[in-house]
Amino acid sequence: MTESLSETTDLELDALLTAAASSAWGHRTSRVRARTLVTLADELQRHTDELVAAALPETGLPEARLRGEVTRTAVQLTMFAEEILGGAYLDVVIDRPDPGFVLGPRPDLRRFQVPIGPVLVFAAGNFPFAFSVAGTDTASALAAGCPVIVKAHPGHPRTSMLTASIVADTLAECGAPAGTFAMIKGIEIGVRALRDRRIAAAAFTGSVSGGRALFDIAAARRRPIPFYGELGSLNPVVITHGAATERPDEIAAGFVGSFTLGAGQFCTKPGLLLIPAGTGLIDRITQLANDIPIVRLLTTRTAEALRNRSAEVNGIDGVEVLLAGAEEVLDDSGVPAVGPTLMKVGAAQLLEHGDTLLAETFGPSALIVEYPSEAKLYEVLSELDGTLTVTVHTGSSPSESERAALSRLVPLAASRCGRLVFNGWPTGVAVTPAQNHGGPYPATTAVAHTSVGTAAIRRFIRPIAFQDAPAGLLPVELQEANPLGVPRTVNEAGQSAGWGRGQY
Amino acid sequence: MTESLSETTDLELDALLTAAASSAWGHRTSRVRARTLVTLADELQRHTDELVAAALPETGLPEARLRGEVTRTAVQLTMFAEEILGGAYLDVVIDRPDPGFVLGPRPDLRRFQVPIGPVLVFAAGNFPFAFSVAGTDTASALAAGCPVIVKAHPGHPRTSMLTASIVADTLAECGAPAGTFAMIKGIEIGVRALRDRRIAAAAFTGSVSGGRALFDIAAARRRPIPFYGELGSLNPVVITHGAATERPDEIAAGFVGSFTLGAGQFCTKPGLLLIPAGTGLIDRITQLANDIPIVRLLTTRTAEALRNRSAEVNGIDGVEVLLAGAEEVLDDSGVPAVGPTLMKVGAAQLLEHGDTLLAETFGPSALIVEYPSEAKLYEVLSELDGTLTVTVHTGSSPSESERAALSRLVPLAASRCGRLVFNGWPTGVAVTPAQNHGGPYPATTAVAHTSVGTAAIRRFIRPIAFQDAPAGLLPVELQEANPLGVPRTVNEAGQSAGWGRGQY
Repeated sequence: MTESLSETTDLELDALLTAAASSAWGHRTSRVRARTLVTLADELQRHTDELVAAALPETGLPEARLRGEVTRTAVQLTMFAEEILGGAYLDVVIDRPDPGFVLGPRPDLRRFQVPIGPVLVFAAGNFPFAFSVAGTDTASALAAGCPVIVKAHPGHPRTSMLTASIVADTLAECGAPAGTFAMIKGIEIGVRALRDRRIAAAAFTGSVSGGRALFDIAAARRRPIPFYGELGSLNPVVITHGAATERPDEIAAGFVGSFTLGAGQFCTKPGLLLIPAGTGLIDRITQLANDIPIVRLLTTRTAEALRNRSAEVNGIDGVEVLLAGAEEVLDDSGVPAVGPTLMKVGAAQLLEHGDTLLAETFGPSALIVEYPSEAKLYEVLSELDGTLTVTVHTGSSPSESERAALSRLVPLAASRCGRLVFNGWPTGVAVTPAQNHGGPYPATTAVAHTSVGTAAIRRFIRPIAFQDAPAGLLPVELQEANPLGVPRTVNEAGQSAGWGRGQY
Repeated sequence: MTESLSETTDLELDALLTAAASSAWGHRTSRVRARTLVTLADELQRHTDELVAAALPETGLPEARLRGEVTRTAVQLTMFAEEILGGAYLDVVIDRPDPGFVLGPRPDLRRFQVPIGPVLVFAAGNFPFAFSVAGTDTASALAAGCPVIVKAHPGHPRTSMLTASIVADTLAECGAPAGTFAMIKGIEIGVRALRDRRIAAAAFTGSVSGGRALFDIAAARRRPIPFYGELGSLNPVVITHGAATERPDEIAAGFVGSFTLGAGQFCTKPGLLLIPAGTGLIDRITQLANDIPIVRLLTTRTAEALRNRSAEVNGIDGVEVLLAGAEEVLDDSGVPAVGPTLMKVGAAQLLEHGDTLLAETFGPSALIVEYPSEAKLYEVLSELDGTLTVTVHTGSSPSESERAALSRLVPLAASRCGRLVFNGWPTGVAVTPAQNHGGPYPATTAVAHTSVGTAAIRRFIRPIAFQDAPAGLLPVELQEANPLGVPRTVNEAGQSAGWGRGQY
């Protein structure tokens, strides 16, 4: 293995795209794909020491976190393996021929989901494993049957190289066709790949500015493609009177733990805390945050962006700094370590400067707002842009008026987010079937999709219907005998007779 | 009812958007929404005579077709009513809390689908009922719980007005909240609505140029939204040697019937016929097409576009005109009636001028290509853009080499389309659960979706997950007792223990 990854040339990219476009990976059975993913999971775990050793200096993340992330990456791969073995994601529907169909004879129609085609994955910087080379995007795309080209994140090149070589070796050992996986390097080459006809979909996790630029490129193609971008998320937390009264210490500690976790470098970091006016919560939180040690950021660029963003927020009239994040270079990496930043602003100022204040700050920084009334709280929630999460802390035995307020607050919060968290914290995203890690723009560029959990596979499939196909020409998933035993919905003739005549 | 629809003003639009954004339609139970849709279906059918009387002069379509289309429109509404009553579209998944989850304790997570928000529907011109004011887009959006604003198609204003007033009256009678439905008129006002923050998704059926312009606007918004456009489709038909030998008369008659049906004004009109070299099929087809009477087109603009497009195709070197579509004004409408246009070109020229020749011609026009070899046929299929359908006619007892050719042809064709039709014709799209009326660009701007059939509702929903929600704050669909009896997947604790350990 080479120690560094050189910029991919146009010629190299062209060859990789041709190989991806002609890879027969999508025609491998789900069993073969699943076995390959599980083998890859095993191989990644077997190389944990090396992977962690590569990532430690490149990211500054703690060893325990990195080890856990390798495990998560492996678990994601096995989860998608299980998902495709089950076959429910294929969404097989069979309509029987129906000479008596209400709109005239119905043919034999069989629909299922096929791989969308070669997927371009833009690796994220904040999860060097779980959202990077072999992360959730790559795992779900490979599971779906799509060849993958990963554009490496510049923040952890050696980690990326090592991961890519494990992926490539494992795929080869498992007999995956050439062209099923490749990694490229370079901003311009990533853009070139995104514009190429042979790429059928793209996935991205990162900043609003970077993600939006790529989304625009995907949309401006002669043949636009789906661009699954996870951009920026405010993740507001609402504390009700009941909760603030009942467990102020727990809330203060939980909030500080959540917004400073991993130096706040999570897409689900809570960036805005809405608390009732007149509690002592702000002081408790400031005190606790003051005790949090400074922690190295991912890259000098992260530090620079955080500095600029803090100055921007700080420059708004009425914003009060409770805790100015200390900054210091602690090690040879030269990357600054920072302490928590806490700021406070009034609800009126927040609303007046919503464009600036209701946006994500990447890093251990949060804004606290005391809401003077429920009405003002609703007003703030109404002004929110799309966000991955909204968190609500409630008292354990709300009064009738509190219940009424909650039943107004919850749908309002739901209208802005992909996940509603109650009495907990948004960081720590469960990798599990019911998860939804998504939300309206700018949380994502594709509100109907999640990038975490089994449903993430849906980003990389598309439906096709076979009409009156001779038995010998049906894909195995649609064959009458159903040799793979995939779940399917069969609509018999006569189906339309009852339409509109039921109990409504 | 007013006889004409005046252009919607900015002020009117603003009021309609505000009303749509604050409509509580999405919070009505699925039972209430279903009952409303079925009532609307009944009301439309009850007004069939009036509706058809309005559409006859405006569209020039035959009365039987228009009557059938009102029925189809009503059936679509009842089909979506059945779909939401069933509740499977809600895709409810419940993950139980799992202290032993492989990546650390899993919370209680419950995911389902909610309405995406107010939908802007651009009505189509070629289906004055089924893809217009109360057509499949409106029906599926209302079923999903989304308020709808329809931008009327200028081709049939009185039909649109009449339909809109039936929709509005029925919704009001059924107690739907104000703002649930409205119709607007004007190109500029449609664009303004598409740019408005209060619109959450848009649907369109029409031309590539118009659809692409609107797609670009949706993508360029500060907050981009899903744009479900159905643009242009070539719908190629492949005739194998076996089929050509076995049933030349049936194929010739079927093809002529399909490409001239409704004066070729269907998105599934077969625009390209690929036949083996050396059969007599071309002569048979030309002869039959020559006997097809001239038929009025929808609008003078349709006629003009067809004339321009025919000239463009005709101007390509090597294109031979077999039948030059006659054109004559037959009635007071002033809209030209036309006869079939048939052209022929060699495979090499087709490939050389693919950008022009492999695009849709809207109207009773088709291009015939004799393919000299299977290799050349594959080459043509590889050059295809996305298309709604590909049709393949096969012999009833293919030889081994023919079977081998088909098993290569079918996946290639599948890679380009949303529906593969065997031994039939692409026109006549069954309105049924397994249908997929979609495909890669430019067939649609959203390859993962269909605009016909029950799955069309998926365009207008998005997921949300509730984490550790107190029982009293869960939406009814996610409540433990499941009072609505919606289908759901429940993942018990311990689920992850088996991941990666199964039989692969």
